[in-house]
Amino acid sequence: MKHLGILLSGRGSNFLAIADAMDRGQIEGADISIVISNRAEAAGIAAARARGLATQVIEARGRKRAEQDAEIVACLREHGVELVCLAGYMRLLSPEFIAAFPNAILNIHPSLLPSFPGLDAQAQALAYGVGISGCTVHFVDEQLDHGVIVLQRAVPVLQGDDEEALSARILEQEHLAYPEAISRVLSGNYAIVDRRYVARASQNAALIEEAK
Amino acid sequence: MKHLGILLSGRGSNFLAIADAMDRGQIEGADISIVISNRAEAAGIAAARARGLATQVIEARGRKRAEQDAEIVACLREHGVELVCLAGYMRLLSPEFIAAFPNAILNIHPSLLPSFPGLDAQAQALAYGVGISGCTVHFVDEQLDHGVIVLQRAVPVLQGDDEEALSARILEQEHLAYPEAISRVLSGNYAIVDRRYVARASQNAALIEEAK
Repeated sequence: MKHLGILLSGRGSNFLAIADAMDRGQIEGADISIVISNRAEAAGIAAARARGLATQVIEARGRKRAEQDAEIVACLREHGVELVCLAGYMRLLSPEFIAAFPNAILNIHPSLLPSFPGLDAQAQALAYGVGISGCTVHFVDEQLDHGVIVLQRAVPVLQGDDEEALSARILEQEHLAYPEAISRVLSGNYAIVDRRYVARASQNAALIEEAK
Repeated sequence: MKHLGILLSGRGSNFLAIADAMDRGQIEGADISIVISNRAEAAGIAAARARGLATQVIEARGRKRAEQDAEIVACLREHGVELVCLAGYMRLLSPEFIAAFPNAILNIHPSLLPSFPGLDAQAQALAYGVGISGCTVHFVDEQLDHGVIVLQRAVPVLQGDDEEALSARILEQEHLAYPEAISRVLSGNYAIVDRRYVARASQNAALIEEAK
């Protein structure tokens, strides 16, 4: 069984999509061993408790980010976490945090990166006037919304869309994309070549396993 | 009848897609009144001649861009051109050219702008490792690959894609996107709000016509 750790700051709709996909058996051989929030009042942390999951609130309380992150890393290790999933976690991770989980921290972003990194990606997309946007699941590196892309899903921007309508359409795709990306990463059947995520054909994967 | 002018530098596959769409009646009330190339040996110019279209080669011959562009603008005007379509035209347009055809110059670019502007967009997309790319038809403004977007079409990047395979998949969509974008622009049923292309509902368009 592989252990996931979730970090969130708000309602955690992507956390719930991951948990639901797990309940449906769509993410095999994995469980959520800890849900961490940097805000005590996050609705996502209450939802995690209601599901009987282990939870932890680790607030900033005016501390340095490195100090808060060290506490989070310790908590994740304590729960045997192998893959960290950011689900609306509104703090940048320290370099030490990122180094503690090499190629093992995922984030989801509501645009087709590299377009529209940073805050308010949906509003940025509308202001630019794109006809297509979407979402991106990527590994976290030290640059904002920049790491290796695991998968993307596209959505049309429709006439008359406001930020709310576009965000809702993208969120539907996020809820499909994140569980799928987690499955891919947990399978281990991939390589990162330069900065491309390259899936190994399952036949090749079997051969690799055999050769071990 | 509205008159289009085409500018190309190479094989002109998008020019041919536009001409074919016109022959099939997919771009109503319009013809191609002139095809201009900045290279005498462009295959697209031979193809235009073979179709019985008026053609003109206007080479740079070491002249300043403004001088060459003035000659092109004069040629377009002589042929009554109302909409200029760049189809693999490998020269930047001078500000004077752009000012001569306000919101009446279209270009097609093989990426989902604002991602991957400039040369070798498909190679840029592969190097970045995106899961989705596509093409963009946009009005030309004074910044490279930057003007208001008329429409975009997405394509998946598949495992094992090289530049050639991805380019071919995007090109298929370009050949659909460009005629569709031209139809939209020629219809006049749109407004540009900030930098968003906003289609007017046909009902609204009828009301606007009535009110004239």
